[in-house]
Amino acid sequence: MKPSKGLLMVISGPSGAGKGTVCKELNKNNEFWISVSATTRSPRLGELNEINYYFLTKDEFKQRIKNKDFLEYAEVYGNYYGTPKSKVEEMLNKGIDVILEIDIQGALKVKECYPEGVFIFILPPSMGELKKRIINRKSETPESFMTRFKSAYKEINYVSKYNYAVVNDVVENAVNKIKSIIVAEKCRVDRIKDSILDSKEGLIHEQFYD
Amino acid sequence: MKPSKGLLMVISGPSGAGKGTVCKELNKNNEFWISVSATTRSPRLGELNEINYYFLTKDEFKQRIKNKDFLEYAEVYGNYYGTPKSKVEEMLNKGIDVILEIDIQGALKVKECYPEGVFIFILPPSMGELKKRIINRKSETPESFMTRFKSAYKEINYVSKYNYAVVNDVVENAVNKIKSIIVAEKCRVDRIKDSILDSKEGLIHEQFYD
Repeated sequence: MKPSKGLLMVISGPSGAGKGTVCKELNKNNEFWISVSATTRSPRLGELNEINYYFLTKDEFKQRIKNKDFLEYAEVYGNYYGTPKSKVEEMLNKGIDVILEIDIQGALKVKECYPEGVFIFILPPSMGELKKRIINRKSETPESFMTRFKSAYKEINYVSKYNYAVVNDVVENAVNKIKSIIVAEKCRVDRIKDSILDSKEGLIHEQFYD
Repeated sequence: MKPSKGLLMVISGPSGAGKGTVCKELNKNNEFWISVSATTRSPRLGELNEINYYFLTKDEFKQRIKNKDFLEYAEVYGNYYGTPKSKVEEMLNKGIDVILEIDIQGALKVKECYPEGVFIFILPPSMGELKKRIINRKSETPESFMTRFKSAYKEINYVSKYNYAVVNDVVENAVNKIKSIIVAEKCRVDRIKDSILDSKEGLIHEQFYD
């Protein structure tokens, strides 16, 4: 069969579901390419250009928006954040699987321009566990905890826009499920039909006449 | 999440692709229920009722056709063969995953009445290998070999009606891919959306007020 394009896997979910931890564990053997976002905010201590973010000026960012070089972007508190398209496409064309770890709004925008992506929603094992994780993450005030929790609760409704939902009860289990999803997606007839039928045509003459 | 129905996995493919071997290896730990077909032909030496087939009289078979108790059936050289529906549905309702190992015509009929099934097409690694397997299977005459080979070659076109295609190069690899497909299908949002949203609703009151 012909070498095929890489898969674009979009890993997303509500705040507190643990998508960052899952992505890190998923790629511990560097089997995938994890997309690096672009931003106009200043680097924090220890953050490196091209590793943590592509740090751009606002003019550079706006020029890239004009050039349609973002799969998605958003303005948050006066700074821009976005997913550069050219690098993602370069990797996919090389046959390398790409992971985007991204929030729900971003994921839905990516889906508009890249519907053949694999959209995976990471779920907390229960709302109780989500509550604990939000509390543990930051020293939240009761008000800000309630805002984050309600927001995460609402975000779970977006699961219906995704292809897969994976409960992050134990990170290793969640990662194994995502690995299975990747194997399965590579067997999907929608993706590989043409190469199956091509390779069949290429072989028939040889087989009838040798 | 609510306990869910079992998956109906339909494993099919051209003659010589090795679907029988794959199914046997897939179920070596008895994790699944492999459907037993019904037939009106006489038992061969060593064949047991309810193990190899449900052996029925023609009248019994025709009555079951009338009662719509077959997912699919066909008449081959004067004998009927079919997949009994009630037992399959009983297992699925208990949450047990069911495997149907079935020919392509049968699989397409099952798809009409059970589109939510998982349809997996087993492919030979190459037409050359398919040729070898057909030759090795029986002492074929050149004419009957050619008929079987051409038929298998044509059948590969039906891959486009299936959800997944798995190349049976090494049985263990093919089985691992099918196991991944099963894991992935159980994470598909189409299948589990309702139970995710139900369990979320059930938890919210407790979480806000404890």
